[in-house]
Amino acid sequence: MKVVELSGGVGGARMAVGLARLSAIDLTVVVNVGDDEEIHGLHISPDIDTVIYTLSDAQGPEGWGRAGDSFNVNTELARFGVDNTFVLGDLDLALNLFRTNRLAAGARLSTVTGEITSSFQITPNVLPVSDDLLRTEIMIDKANWIGFQEYFVIRQNQDLVKAIRFTGQDSASPAPGVIESIQQADHVVIAPSNPPLSIWPILAVEDVRSAVAAHRNVTAVSPLIGGKALKGPADRVMASLGLPPGNLGVAEAYQDVVDRLIIDSDDRDDVARIEGIEGIEVLPTDIRIKEPGHAERLAREIVGL
Amino acid sequence: MKVVELSGGVGGARMAVGLARLSAIDLTVVVNVGDDEEIHGLHISPDIDTVIYTLSDAQGPEGWGRAGDSFNVNTELARFGVDNTFVLGDLDLALNLFRTNRLAAGARLSTVTGEITSSFQITPNVLPVSDDLLRTEIMIDKANWIGFQEYFVIRQNQDLVKAIRFTGQDSASPAPGVIESIQQADHVVIAPSNPPLSIWPILAVEDVRSAVAAHRNVTAVSPLIGGKALKGPADRVMASLGLPPGNLGVAEAYQDVVDRLIIDSDDRDDVARIEGIEGIEVLPTDIRIKEPGHAERLAREIVGL
Repeated sequence: MKVVELSGGVGGARMAVGLARLSAIDLTVVVNVGDDEEIHGLHISPDIDTVIYTLSDAQGPEGWGRAGDSFNVNTELARFGVDNTFVLGDLDLALNLFRTNRLAAGARLSTVTGEITSSFQITPNVLPVSDDLLRTEIMIDKANWIGFQEYFVIRQNQDLVKAIRFTGQDSASPAPGVIESIQQADHVVIAPSNPPLSIWPILAVEDVRSAVAAHRNVTAVSPLIGGKALKGPADRVMASLGLPPGNLGVAEAYQDVVDRLIIDSDDRDDVARIEGIEGIEVLPTDIRIKEPGHAERLAREIVGL
Repeated sequence: MKVVELSGGVGGARMAVGLARLSAIDLTVVVNVGDDEEIHGLHISPDIDTVIYTLSDAQGPEGWGRAGDSFNVNTELARFGVDNTFVLGDLDLALNLFRTNRLAAGARLSTVTGEITSSFQITPNVLPVSDDLLRTEIMIDKANWIGFQEYFVIRQNQDLVKAIRFTGQDSASPAPGVIESIQQADHVVIAPSNPPLSIWPILAVEDVRSAVAAHRNVTAVSPLIGGKALKGPADRVMASLGLPPGNLGVAEAYQDVVDRLIIDSDDRDDVARIEGIEGIEVLPTDIRIKEPGHAERLAREIVGL
């Protein structure tokens, strides 16, 4: 059975672990690159790396970065007056150095991502949604646009997100294999990632949106329980962008692309209302998937195994 | 008193420490850049860094790199199939990352070197001989030229050096301040570095050679004792390039630029013969300068303090 997951960072990575534990599944994870950034001249792809690290059980305690990493390079950079607020661990830096050099040598991001995936000896196919420049930018004040990492890491996602845009979306093509994998998939799963900040940049690539919209079996997992994000600023961002609160907002964020929304059992009272308004199937179950076993159970429910 | 030292790596760095300990001296160290290389996309300047690290007493146990450095990035690079034979420590890598980004932003190597010198809070002025591309290449076999670091680090300087050349020497200009500091110097000291591999690339910049040759008070310190290099392959390289053995070869390597050669007391029998052949003053003294106190004593003798 072929499954495609659209994924942001930590939540998507945990969902990927659950799907990857189902041996009957041929899994492709299509990952957001709107968070990519250049840090100290290195091309960082935080969501791709979080997915790969988590799939190989090498992720850090907060879900991102590497477990047991050291920070010797990052600390030393301060000696030279370099702003090291965006913390890159030493192991993480080695990966970013490798990727940066491969890209500088002309390799595509998807090719390099495949090489990194092989280096970590994981089975799923991990694909950036695009090899082209595509960057999420955040308006925190009238005409004041900042990059995603400045919003998320440096300013610790405390600003009110007044608008978002995806620089490069008009010229970004899907990476090789993205459209084919969606078209051939038995299931497309939208991870419990931040809808506007992690999934919209994936759907911002027009051909990807069309392929997902045309697919007849697209299931989204809500990142909210009781109207609150399990992790990160999803509820606040959705509210400030004018989406309805709670799971109805999630359904609306994915209007025209999803056939089914999975929400938490605690929110089962939402089912009838959302089904009535949005015309999609809404299924309540336990969506807490921090533990791989829980993620596997949810994955099994989604794909009907 | 103004002193300029022409320096390669470890030997030159130790000489610089001796000169820097003389408080009456305003010291400028003009450093070889023929060893510079791009490693993992980073611009490394091994001789400059060895001089700065040693002047701030932060050098590694072998004289190069940083004391107490870790190698987490370098080790991890192997995961991605990257050749990590050229070992960069984590602290060393932070410096190289800083330099690479500053150069990419358009800063001159001499400017960045000044910034690094300030970061290590050392007093002497450390200048690359040139901000332009200038690379030492080694012929190890008929028409087989390799880069300096490949010869020196990767192949552990075991090859017979049949010829050397300095790529870029015709278009390389002296870095700002180099010529002025030589012209204004009371003493020019050529460090006990490898004459062909560390000092010739400095003199390969035509205006630098002219300025040194025009100077009336140039003292070279021999890197040989009893015909053998204290460190590195100087004696072997000099022999294979056709220079006479021992201190006579050193004098010949610096023909037309030096006024005085300092040799070790153990070689005092060489004095008359070299003075007769080369027409320069030859002074025997203790030239072992691994210990800062010994380097200071030698420095004091050279500048006559």
